[in-house]
Amino acid sequence: MASGAEPGVLELVRRGHEERILALLRARGPLSRAEIARSSGLSRSTLSEIVSALLERGAVVTATAEATGRRSPGRPAELVTLNPAAGRTLGMDFGHRRVHVAVADAAQQVAATGTRSYARSTSWGRRVRIACNLVDSLRVDLGPLTGVGVGVAGPVPRDRDGRPDGAARQVAEAVGEHFGVPVVADNNTRLAALAEAARGAGTGSSDVVYVRLSDGVGGGIVADGRLLRGAAGTAGEIGHVPVDAAGPPCGCGGHGCLEAYASVPAVLAACGGADLPGALAALDAGDAAARAAFDRAGRALGLVLAGVCNTLAPERVVVGGELAAAGEAILGPAEEALRRHALPMVRADLRLSPASLGPEAGALGAIALVAHESPLLAGYPFLMAGGTPA
Amino acid sequence: MASGAEPGVLELVRRGHEERILALLRARGPLSRAEIARSSGLSRSTLSEIVSALLERGAVVTATAEATGRRSPGRPAELVTLNPAAGRTLGMDFGHRRVHVAVADAAQQVAATGTRSYARSTSWGRRVRIACNLVDSLRVDLGPLTGVGVGVAGPVPRDRDGRPDGAARQVAEAVGEHFGVPVVADNNTRLAALAEAARGAGTGSSDVVYVRLSDGVGGGIVADGRLLRGAAGTAGEIGHVPVDAAGPPCGCGGHGCLEAYASVPAVLAACGGADLPGALAALDAGDAAARAAFDRAGRALGLVLAGVCNTLAPERVVVGGELAAAGEAILGPAEEALRRHALPMVRADLRLSPASLGPEAGALGAIALVAHESPLLAGYPFLMAGGTPA
Repeated sequence: MASGAEPGVLELVRRGHEERILALLRARGPLSRAEIARSSGLSRSTLSEIVSALLERGAVVTATAEATGRRSPGRPAELVTLNPAAGRTLGMDFGHRRVHVAVADAAQQVAATGTRSYARSTSWGRRVRIACNLVDSLRVDLGPLTGVGVGVAGPVPRDRDGRPDGAARQVAEAVGEHFGVPVVADNNTRLAALAEAARGAGTGSSDVVYVRLSDGVGGGIVADGRLLRGAAGTAGEIGHVPVDAAGPPCGCGGHGCLEAYASVPAVLAACGGADLPGALAALDAGDAAARAAFDRAGRALGLVLAGVCNTLAPERVVVGGELAAAGEAILGPAEEALRRHALPMVRADLRLSPASLGPEAGALGAIALVAHESPLLAGYPFLMAGGTPA
Repeated sequence: MASGAEPGVLELVRRGHEERILALLRARGPLSRAEIARSSGLSRSTLSEIVSALLERGAVVTATAEATGRRSPGRPAELVTLNPAAGRTLGMDFGHRRVHVAVADAAQQVAATGTRSYARSTSWGRRVRIACNLVDSLRVDLGPLTGVGVGVAGPVPRDRDGRPDGAARQVAEAVGEHFGVPVVADNNTRLAALAEAARGAGTGSSDVVYVRLSDGVGGGIVADGRLLRGAAGTAGEIGHVPVDAAGPPCGCGGHGCLEAYASVPAVLAACGGADLPGALAALDAGDAAARAAFDRAGRALGLVLAGVCNTLAPERVVVGGELAAAGEAILGPAEEALRRHALPMVRADLRLSPASLGPEAGALGAIALVAHESPLLAGYPFLMAGGTPA
């Protein structure tokens, strides 16, 4: 009953009203203020206040019934409609050696993408300038940007308020200064997980486990329609689930982690290959060492995935990263081990598939993150309808 | 734009209004209709409709300002207030050999608990009758019950609409018929996880992993303040995470599962003990075989927990079940293995502790589930404030 609780409640009420009006407009198209009042149950004065705020932010615009092509029986009422130019979102994925950018409209349709390489030694500040120049060079109308999502390689620690810390914060601040809009940030592999769940191989499911087999092994978890963050902000580090406590040492300081079996370097070490294209060619040529190396990686992957799936009971497992290019040579043994060790109830409706989004996954996930972390959508699972905010 | 989307949106709007009115009343105490209208922004007609529905359900009652002790400057307005007798919740936990029940008031304070044993062969129908008689015998005023939460031993499959299937549905239907209120149900170990997170050893954290070492090994995951369900409805089956692909066979049909190392039967088999009290006594007496058996169980537990924690990045791990009574003999090696295999960022703020709720955990979790699954709270993380619905 402390009155200190009041501002929180009122803020929650206001946000809820805004979101519901936007949801009504998404579901029913342009509406007059009277129609919104009727459908939302809001008083005229509250409604007027909220619509003014939405107009000011550029989230909605007004139009005549004629302009929207709607027939109106009486005098032409002014209609409120989602701003078609609003809600453009920019996604940026900063890897160790290249940046990907993507621009999407309010309906999450991709309007443009681009990529630029840089040396691994490039500073974060320089990477941001390269990315901003890349966005300019796309010559796409950004309109009134809703926000920017940023992915960065490497762990993204969180401060006490849940905001990204370290390099991610530095990059987010520089990007925010350049575009003058809110920026959200996360690890780029977790963002690829979000993208695969929202618009890739996991579309249509609210429970997706994503694992990425590359120089390292990372991943991300979407559970009940949300990207899990965890208290440490690092949820999804499937690459460091132990396969065998007595296994080979891992870069993380542990032993027998999945990364020590199913990363590109681990597979190359196992088959004596110099690089991945060479190892894939050897595999194609029927080389026994190459086959054994991919098979070992796949079995380790499947065993770890079985544990993760028994813990989380997902519907889809999506495998991305360069190693997934080996196809059945790695996914076959992975699926076999997964099915052998997953509980009958867990494996019954479980599907394992290769990732479908390619190298833009991180940038697309950064776009999805903007909607995912919007305070207007706080608490709403948003992946239910195939990735478009509900 | 399909008009088929409309009822969903309108239903969402209505539920949101109800929840916000209840939240206002919780935060500010008794309010007049005019005050609610002002604070909520709802029109008089919408408000009147919603308050009528809440009155009818018994969620709120009306009172005069005098009766509530509130001073009113003008004529005494009728105030709307949360029904103090409303919100009583009943929790029932049906194990294989006994049922626990608990009754809590609207503030989640426990008013009464009770337990009854039965033979393992007792039918579900008979178990329900025993439980209902037990509740009657507690002679506690149930008032207008908000709902009943039911936990059952064994897996709880879900139908396409996410409702419990199998024995859980049968029990829920029989209980609902007896009390005439909505019943929610889940596996009782998952409910113990919810209880430990809401009011036990995990209180204060939104990210809790719970594992129960008993005849079998089960668990439950609370992530970002929510009990994870998973697509299959079975999230939390940590007992079937593989420790070693070549390990001993497990009752689930798999090999090398945690349950084959860290369940009561596994520990007894490893030390040649007849029963758990005997094994614990041997442990206390310094018996080497007993010590080795608990140590092996602890190491397997820690290894599996490291994988689960690297995947989920929780803040707390809570270990319950009869085997936890061995204390350091099992938790010591578990913590050691957990710290050795957990990522530095994951283990930094991670705490492993024994469960604190005892045998009532399942019934208390069943009570928490009623609030957790309330449509009024759909989408709201509710564990943030130490377990009371926000």
